[in-house]
Amino acid sequence: MTRIARYFPILTWGRSYGRDTFSDDLLAAVIVTIMLIPQSLAYALLAGMPPEAGLYASIVPILLYAVFGTSRALAVGPVAIVSLMTAAALGQVAEQGTVGYATAALTLAALSGAILLAMGLFRLGFLANFLSHPVIAGFITASGIIIALGQLRHILGIGGGGDTVVELLEGLARNLTQTNLPTLVIGAGATAFLFWVRRGLKPMLRRMGLGPRLADVATKAGPVAAVVATTLAVWLLDLTARGVAVVGAVPQSLPPLTLPDLSPGLIGQLALPALLISVIGFVESISVAQTLAAKKRERVNPDQELIGLGAANLGAAFTGGFPVTGGFSRSVVNFDAGARTPAAGAYTAAGLAIAALALTPLIHFLPTATLAATIIVAVLSLVDFDILRRSWAYSRADFTAVAATMAVTLIFGVEAGVSSGVAVSILLYLFRTSRPHIAEVGRVPGTEHFRNIHRHAVETDPSIVTLRVDESLYFANARFLEDHILDRVAGDEALRHVILQCTAINEIDLSALESLEAINRRLDEMGTKLHLSEVKGPVMDRLKRAHFLDDLTGQVFLSQHAAVCALSAADEPPARSIA
Amino acid sequence: MTRIARYFPILTWGRSYGRDTFSDDLLAAVIVTIMLIPQSLAYALLAGMPPEAGLYASIVPILLYAVFGTSRALAVGPVAIVSLMTAAALGQVAEQGTVGYATAALTLAALSGAILLAMGLFRLGFLANFLSHPVIAGFITASGIIIALGQLRHILGIGGGGDTVVELLEGLARNLTQTNLPTLVIGAGATAFLFWVRRGLKPMLRRMGLGPRLADVATKAGPVAAVVATTLAVWLLDLTARGVAVVGAVPQSLPPLTLPDLSPGLIGQLALPALLISVIGFVESISVAQTLAAKKRERVNPDQELIGLGAANLGAAFTGGFPVTGGFSRSVVNFDAGARTPAAGAYTAAGLAIAALALTPLIHFLPTATLAATIIVAVLSLVDFDILRRSWAYSRADFTAVAATMAVTLIFGVEAGVSSGVAVSILLYLFRTSRPHIAEVGRVPGTEHFRNIHRHAVETDPSIVTLRVDESLYFANARFLEDHILDRVAGDEALRHVILQCTAINEIDLSALESLEAINRRLDEMGTKLHLSEVKGPVMDRLKRAHFLDDLTGQVFLSQHAAVCALSAADEPPARSIA
Repeated sequence: MTRIARYFPILTWGRSYGRDTFSDDLLAAVIVTIMLIPQSLAYALLAGMPPEAGLYASIVPILLYAVFGTSRALAVGPVAIVSLMTAAALGQVAEQGTVGYATAALTLAALSGAILLAMGLFRLGFLANFLSHPVIAGFITASGIIIALGQLRHILGIGGGGDTVVELLEGLARNLTQTNLPTLVIGAGATAFLFWVRRGLKPMLRRMGLGPRLADVATKAGPVAAVVATTLAVWLLDLTARGVAVVGAVPQSLPPLTLPDLSPGLIGQLALPALLISVIGFVESISVAQTLAAKKRERVNPDQELIGLGAANLGAAFTGGFPVTGGFSRSVVNFDAGARTPAAGAYTAAGLAIAALALTPLIHFLPTATLAATIIVAVLSLVDFDILRRSWAYSRADFTAVAATMAVTLIFGVEAGVSSGVAVSILLYLFRTSRPHIAEVGRVPGTEHFRNIHRHAVETDPSIVTLRVDESLYFANARFLEDHILDRVAGDEALRHVILQCTAINEIDLSALESLEAINRRLDEMGTKLHLSEVKGPVMDRLKRAHFLDDLTGQVFLSQHAAVCALSAADEPPARSIA
Repeated sequence: MTRIARYFPILTWGRSYGRDTFSDDLLAAVIVTIMLIPQSLAYALLAGMPPEAGLYASIVPILLYAVFGTSRALAVGPVAIVSLMTAAALGQVAEQGTVGYATAALTLAALSGAILLAMGLFRLGFLANFLSHPVIAGFITASGIIIALGQLRHILGIGGGGDTVVELLEGLARNLTQTNLPTLVIGAGATAFLFWVRRGLKPMLRRMGLGPRLADVATKAGPVAAVVATTLAVWLLDLTARGVAVVGAVPQSLPPLTLPDLSPGLIGQLALPALLISVIGFVESISVAQTLAAKKRERVNPDQELIGLGAANLGAAFTGGFPVTGGFSRSVVNFDAGARTPAAGAYTAAGLAIAALALTPLIHFLPTATLAATIIVAVLSLVDFDILRRSWAYSRADFTAVAATMAVTLIFGVEAGVSSGVAVSILLYLFRTSRPHIAEVGRVPGTEHFRNIHRHAVETDPSIVTLRVDESLYFANARFLEDHILDRVAGDEALRHVILQCTAINEIDLSALESLEAINRRLDEMGTKLHLSEVKGPVMDRLKRAHFLDDLTGQVFLSQHAAVCALSAADEPPARSIA
C-alpha cells in the first residue's frame, strides 16, 4: 500500500477528505477559474496556438496533476516562459496557424511528458540542480523582455514577430507606420489599467476597509475586468470594422481527444527543445511548490513532482493542448484563496470545462490587444535586473554566468540561452577547481590549529613545509598541484619534510594519484620526504587499495598537530646553507 | 631581452653552443635521420598522404620547433595517433589520393597550428588537463587497435579500410579471399622480424657484449634493415609483376611551398577535428617532453611548447605536410643518442632534406606491406589493456571514463572517442560533487581533533550536531545540502546548535549562499542556531561581503574546538524530551 501510495499521493490526502476541506477547496477553485480564463487564452496566443488550446491545456493536465502531484497548492497549466519556448521550438518545424503547428505542439507536449516521467521514475530530479539560481534568474529576466517585446505588436495592431530581441525590434521598426489607432487605444488602455490594478488598486481597497486577502483576490480579478470592458467596447462600437483584431470564433467543446504525431523526423527535431522545456518547466514548478509547501511546513518530493508534471503534459498531448507546468501566479492565488488539497485543482478543471463549453461565444469580440496587455503586465513582474548587481557584488563567476545567459537569450533566443547558461556555469566551476587555492600553513600559537601563514600569525619550522590544498585532487588540477609543489620546494635547502594537509581533499582520482606518485618520487630525489595529514576515511581507503602508502617516503598522520610534533622532534633543525 | 628570449628559447641555448655540443647533436641527428626515413613514409601512408609528404612534414616543422620549442630532446614530425586522426578528418571532406585531400591536409595543419599558437599566446595550456590520464591511456589503446587493424589490409595486399573497428573488420572479411600471397609473405615476414628485433635482438646483442646504448640504437635501426631487405627482394624478384604494392615513383624535391585552402566552408568542416588533433597532439608531446626533461632536471614550459608546436604545424601547412607533433619513439631515440640541444633537430632536418632530394628513387620498390609492418609493431607497443584493470581496482568512476573512451573510439572512431572521454570524465566529476560526502563529527578524546562519528570513537554533545561537508558548496549541490541538514535536524528535540565545519568548503557560490540563508531561516524557526567553524579566508571574505553574517543566528568560530567549548559551556544540556 505505501509503495502504491508513493506514486499516487491522492490515496494519502483523499482518505481524510471532509466537508470543511471541500468548501475551502471549492471557493479557491472559483477564484482561480475566473483568473485562469483570460490567462489561458493569453498564453495560447503567446505559444502561437488557437485560444481554445489554452483552455484545453488547463483542464486534463490539472486533473492528472491532482492525482500524481505532491504539492497541495500547485496549479498546472500554460505559463509564460514555457509558452514562449513552445513558440520558439514550433516555429522551427511549422508555420503558426497551420494544422502542422498544432500537431507539433501535441508532439512537444508528449515528448516533454515522457522526459519528465522518465526523469521521475529514474530519480533524475537532481539534474535540475545544474541550472543555478542566478542563471535561472537571468534567463527569466531575458525571456520576460523577449515576451513583452513580442506582444507589443498586438498592442500596436501590426505584423512582425521573431524569437530574438533583434528580430522583434526589426519587425516593430518596419511595421510601426501601420499602427492601428483603435487597437493602440485599447491595448495601451488595458496595459495602463492592469499596471494600476497591480500597483494602485490594492492600497486603495485597503484604505477603503477591505481585508488584505479580499483586496488581493480583487486585484487578481483585474484582467477579467479588462477583458469584459474591452470586449464590450469592441462589440458595441463595432471596432472589428476599424481593424481591431479579436479572438474570433472559438469552438464550443470539451477538450477533444487528439493524437500527437510521433514520426521519428519530428521527434528528432523537437527532442532537444522538449528537454529544455521539461527542465525549465520543472525548475519553475518545483520552486513554486517548495515555497508554498514551506509556508505550511510540508515537503514536496521532487521525483514525484516530475511524475506529476509528466502525467500533466501527456494529458495535454492527448487533449488538444501544449506543454504545461506549475505556474507561479496561479499557484499563489490558489494558495491564498485557501486551497487545501489537490481537489481544488479538480474543481478548477470542472470550472474551465464549463467555460470551454458555454462561455466561448462570449469571447468572440475579445481584442487580442487585451490579451497582449495581460501578458506584458504579468511578465514584466518577472524581470529582475537587480540579479546583475547582486551577482556582481558577490562573485565575478556568478556574474559572468548570469550576464552570459541574459545576453545569449536576448540575442540568440531561449534555447541557446538555457544551454549556454548551463554550459558557462559548469565551465567556470571546472576552471576554478582546476587552479585550486593552495595555502602554506603554520600553527596558531598555543593551539593545535593550523592556518594560512599569510593571513594569521603562526609558528613554522624551516625544515617543514605544510601545504593545504583547498580542493579535491582530480584530473583537471593534478598537474597544477605537481607544478606548485615542485616550484615551492625547488631551492629551499633547509627543507626536509613536505606535509600535505588533506582536510579539504575529498577525493583523489587516478590521474591525481599518478601525480602524487610523481611528487613523492621527485621529492625523494631531492632528499625530501612527503607526508600526509588528516586524510579523510574514504580517501584513505582508496590510497591503501592503490598501494600508494607502500611507496610513500614519509608517514600518514591522523592530525596535522601530530605530524608537526613528530617531525620537529625527530629532526634537529639543520643549519641553513648559504645558497 | 628576457621578454624576447621567452618566446625564442633558441636565444638562450644558442649563445652557449660549442664544439662538444655540436658533435653530440650531430651524432644523434644521424641516428634519428636513419630511423625517421621509414617512419615518415609509414605515417604518411597511415594519414592517407603520398609518401613524400611524410618526409616534408618532418623537415620544416623540426626546424621551427628548434627555434620556438623549449624541450631539448623532443623530435617533431608525423606520429601514429595524429596521422590516424588526420585520415579520419580528411576522409569526411575528400577522397584519398585526390588533390583535394592533400590540400585539405594543409588546411588541417594550418588550423591546428593556429589553434596551438592561440592557446600558447593566451596561456590556455591548462585546458589539456581536462583530458585525464586514464582517458588518454584508453584512447591511445583503442586508437592503436584501430591503426593495427587498418594496416592489416596492406599486409594482406587487399582493399578495404574505414574509421571504426566494425568497418575495418567488415572490409577485411569481405576481401580476405583476394589475399596476395607474395605481399603476405613480405608483410608477415617483416612484422615477425620487427617483433623479434624489439623483443629478442637487444638481449642477444647484450649477450654478445655490446653496450646497452649501442644495443638500443641497433634495435631502433631494425625498420631500416626491413626496408632495405624487402625493397631488394621486390626489385630482384620482380614482385610488382606478381601484385605486390610498392611506394612507386616519388618526386625528388625539397619541401615545396604550398598554400592551404582557407575557404570558410572547409574551415568550418575541419575546425573541430583540428581542435581535437591539436589537443591530443599537445598532450602526447608535452608528456614526452616532460618525461625527458625530468631525466636531466630541466623543465619545459607548457605555454611555450604550444607556441613551438603551433609554429611546427604552420610550417607543415606551407611546405606540403600534414599535422605533426612531438613523437614518443623518435624523441626517446634522439635523447638516448645524446642530443643536447634543439640544434640536433635542425641537423636531422638537413639529413631528411638530403634524403628527399637524393634517396627517393631508391624507395620506388619499397613494399607498402613493410611500411604497414613498421606501423603495426610501433602501435601495438602503445596498446595497454592493463589500464582497464588498474582503473577498475582504483575507482568505478575512473574505470567508467576509460571504458567509455575505449568503446566509443573503437565503435564510433577517434573524434567521437576523444570528445566522449572528456565529456564522461567531466560529467562523472560533476555528478560526484553534486552529492557530497557529509560527515557528522565528534571530538577524538583528549585532543582538539574532530573526526567522523562512524569511523572513530569520539565524544559528542546531544545539544550540538557538527556536520563536515566534504565539498565546495555550489549550484549543483546546494539543494542536496539543504535537504540533508533539514532531514538530520527534523525530530531531534534535544538539538540547540548546528555547526557547519567548513574545513573542506573551498568556495560558496551565490546559489549555495541562498541555500545557506534558507537553512539559517528554517533552523531559526525550529529554535536551533546555525554556527560556522574553520571557515577559510577567501570564503569568509565573500560571506562578509554578502552580509550573510549579519543574519546568521549563531557565530563563526576560528576552530571547531573553540566552537564546541563555547557552545557546551553556554548551554546546560537540556533534558531529552520524550517524543
